[in-house]
Amino acid sequence: MRRERFLPGTPAARLALATAVCFGFVAGASSAGAQPTETAGTADPVDRIDLVRAFRQENAPAILREFRELLAIPNVASDSANIRRNADWIASALRRRGVLTEVWTLGGAPPVVYGRLGSEDAQRTLGIYVHYDGQPVDRESWSSPPWEPALLTTSLENGGTRIAWPVRGENPDPESRIYARSAGDDKAPIAAVLAALDALRDAGLTPTSNLVFLLEGEEEAGSDHLGDYLRDHRDELQVDLWLIADGPVHQSRRPQLVFGVRGYSGFDITVYGATRYLHSGHYGNWAPNPALLLSSLLAGMKDASGAVTIADFYADTAPISDEDRAAIAELPDYDSVLRRELGLHSTEADNRPLAETILLPSLNVRGLASAAVGAAARNIIPTEATASVDIRLAKGDDPEVMLDRVEAHIRTQGFTIVRDEPDLETRLAHPRIAKVIRRSGYPAVRTELDHPAVASVKEAARRAAGEAPLMVPTLGGSLPLYLFVDVLEAPVVITPIANHDDNQHAPDENLRLANLWYGVDLMGALLTMP
Amino acid sequence: MRRERFLPGTPAARLALATAVCFGFVAGASSAGAQPTETAGTADPVDRIDLVRAFRQENAPAILREFRELLAIPNVASDSANIRRNADWIASALRRRGVLTEVWTLGGAPPVVYGRLGSEDAQRTLGIYVHYDGQPVDRESWSSPPWEPALLTTSLENGGTRIAWPVRGENPDPESRIYARSAGDDKAPIAAVLAALDALRDAGLTPTSNLVFLLEGEEEAGSDHLGDYLRDHRDELQVDLWLIADGPVHQSRRPQLVFGVRGYSGFDITVYGATRYLHSGHYGNWAPNPALLLSSLLAGMKDASGAVTIADFYADTAPISDEDRAAIAELPDYDSVLRRELGLHSTEADNRPLAETILLPSLNVRGLASAAVGAAARNIIPTEATASVDIRLAKGDDPEVMLDRVEAHIRTQGFTIVRDEPDLETRLAHPRIAKVIRRSGYPAVRTELDHPAVASVKEAARRAAGEAPLMVPTLGGSLPLYLFVDVLEAPVVITPIANHDDNQHAPDENLRLANLWYGVDLMGALLTMP
Repeated sequence: MRRERFLPGTPAARLALATAVCFGFVAGASSAGAQPTETAGTADPVDRIDLVRAFRQENAPAILREFRELLAIPNVASDSANIRRNADWIASALRRRGVLTEVWTLGGAPPVVYGRLGSEDAQRTLGIYVHYDGQPVDRESWSSPPWEPALLTTSLENGGTRIAWPVRGENPDPESRIYARSAGDDKAPIAAVLAALDALRDAGLTPTSNLVFLLEGEEEAGSDHLGDYLRDHRDELQVDLWLIADGPVHQSRRPQLVFGVRGYSGFDITVYGATRYLHSGHYGNWAPNPALLLSSLLAGMKDASGAVTIADFYADTAPISDEDRAAIAELPDYDSVLRRELGLHSTEADNRPLAETILLPSLNVRGLASAAVGAAARNIIPTEATASVDIRLAKGDDPEVMLDRVEAHIRTQGFTIVRDEPDLETRLAHPRIAKVIRRSGYPAVRTELDHPAVASVKEAARRAAGEAPLMVPTLGGSLPLYLFVDVLEAPVVITPIANHDDNQHAPDENLRLANLWYGVDLMGALLTMP
Repeated sequence: MRRERFLPGTPAARLALATAVCFGFVAGASSAGAQPTETAGTADPVDRIDLVRAFRQENAPAILREFRELLAIPNVASDSANIRRNADWIASALRRRGVLTEVWTLGGAPPVVYGRLGSEDAQRTLGIYVHYDGQPVDRESWSSPPWEPALLTTSLENGGTRIAWPVRGENPDPESRIYARSAGDDKAPIAAVLAALDALRDAGLTPTSNLVFLLEGEEEAGSDHLGDYLRDHRDELQVDLWLIADGPVHQSRRPQLVFGVRGYSGFDITVYGATRYLHSGHYGNWAPNPALLLSSLLAGMKDASGAVTIADFYADTAPISDEDRAAIAELPDYDSVLRRELGLHSTEADNRPLAETILLPSLNVRGLASAAVGAAARNIIPTEATASVDIRLAKGDDPEVMLDRVEAHIRTQGFTIVRDEPDLETRLAHPRIAKVIRRSGYPAVRTELDHPAVASVKEAARRAAGEAPLMVPTLGGSLPLYLFVDVLEAPVVITPIANHDDNQHAPDENLRLANLWYGVDLMGALLTMP
């Protein structure tokens, strides 16, 4: 029954709507079809979302045709020529819909597409952020070419087979999937908002908010220039709320809104033994073993329950609020399903809910290396051992302060911290040496669940989904959304639409059509929220 | 002054001796030069070693010429044709000296050269073990071709330059070095014993012991067939004492006798997280981190002082005897030099002497791996973490029992031990899983320092070196000498002659001439000990 969630009401309701609205073409035709407009604010919200839903049902073939065009343009951030083609395509698509559009550039960085659509009786200014670049592809691992969009009956894992793209009058199965790079991450919201604009115009409605569009082309390459773009264009980017249209919905397929991301920090640590490999027989029990020293050091950073034991690690972390706990309590209990899928008998902190654990900062050993294991192992005492550690930050945690605390902990374990490979004199001067390389990071972002803007967004998502969305206090992952908060001084809400099993960042990325339709409905609802 | 140690007495003494003895040619000529013989046992031991010394001084060019011939034959165990050439060369060289010789084969394994030389008034039967194979070479890393022996003024590190091989009447500097694979490890003792046999014959002396020669061609490849050879030829190999002519003298250049080797055991351990890499943001703090689990497990195996904390790890270890402690007290304090050379501020067990620590079993993490570090590191939770561990055994320790104790320790830490990659059901059934692969091992060997045979050997080495040899209770390293003890039921004494800085197993292996001369003298003294 779950697959019905994103489907519009009953067949009867659909029929009634189909006769009640007037359909234009999607792109060019619809934006040219000058319908008499009314301010959406005066219509009933439920009516409005039904109008959007009816439009995208009848115009599915045209919406998909336009989406295919966009998906067919290769979009790796380093591919400057094609990245520019994406930006131009998007700018042009927005312009056709009456959006004032600019393409910003900054040195050789991928351009930002900026758009503005004013509304006379706007209640607010709403920012919509999407990124149009995608992860690089390993062509060999894809079942079909990543930039030749293919429509399949269902997912490949479930035996999906290729079908023809629908033509006018055909209504594709919402379980069918579009296979292409960025189908899910993150071109889907572009298709969704374009279709929503068409639907509104077609219904003679204007958005209830001023709209500011910000489309980035460098997200998958690290958003290195996003901060500069935001600082350079601070004035044009003043909004009341940023909608970050990215990421997947819940694993249960229920739609969700996400109100934060974790920050990031991290370090690489190397500890040292002798200056050369030593015969483990001749020198074992005598020469210090760096693999063991590092093991002890890392082991001392977390206790058996998974709590980080570094002093003050949690000192600045914002406490979990009653609203957070209430929202987490509403989330489906998906942990046991995940555990089973991942082969985990149990998880840290006595199986505390995943959604709760990510409200705390984490410390994760992402890699460990010392000499060799397996066939290459030799009977030696390693010269050094290295770990790479990442730290996820919760609201309140400062990336540099966290690293200071880690370093203080390392010092309490008797280590002298150095920044470069230690020379002989340094080695001889200190019993234990740790080279610590601090990686750059950024803080977490959270919009409190009782923020005034949240209620409207939640209601819009409820109307689009036909049920209340899951309210997720934060993503476990990190995105540099602090830039929106720090530079633009506006709150953010993440509005995901893609299916969780969209192979994001991986070969055979795909988008489930039901999720695209939810995206159109969600954008329609957000653009017309009171 | 240290370089003088291996030089024969004073120039005057040398001159006196040169006129007192009659010189033959080395190889063919000397073995054919039928001198009237007397039993060495009736001559004064000091006189006998002076005869040997004088002989090898005057015949140095011929001794080196023969050694060069042997060093020129490539000797990697897997190179069957050349290994056979080595065996034939050695058998022929022994035969020329009156030794009854056989070349034993076993399937495709490198042959063993067996020799026997009887003596009418023999006090005992003495076994002499040498291996004639060498480590494989990385040709590019050598300064000159490994099987084209070169004579240098001194070591390459000290600026040694190539010089001509000496001709009759020339007396090469004892600091010069022969560069060639196996110059030190382990063809040097072959040259030494051949020269010693020549010297005795030349002086009209016969050995005081029956001699049994055992020359192995597979040591550097793991001695896989040595046990079978010994079992197949148990009767021919009955001796009172085995001299294991292998390894280097002390780092201080003082000669040493070694009375044991450590045994070996080891295991590889892998612990598990989720079945696939997990995003460290989405799942960090929730999914168990195998790198951290393994770190904790390893860290719990040794305490801060370096003592192994696995229950009963030391339970069967033979106690350190008063003789051991006395012998260790006589050893030069070389630890601080080593520490400085190796860049170690301090060592385990509060800087306890190296020679004492190797009388205990050790546990060494020889390699560690989990996901990736450095540029390849990603923000994931690893799926597994692996460590490779070797255990060196002291006398009394059983390799399998030690592994049982390690496994018991792992179990006390909450791990279920498996032998194969765990499947999903296994993973779900147990909170912590460790795959433990036990490597095969063998026990340590020690000849107690108060063994009756030890005094004679020590006195022989004293006569050869001109000072009492260091008495080393055990090597830190492992050799399968238990085969001699278990299969042949005879004690062993290791009689090293090579310089410690001979680049054993490495490119530019070399032998310092002073060490070769000590070897000839030592063999002469051992062959004539009362």
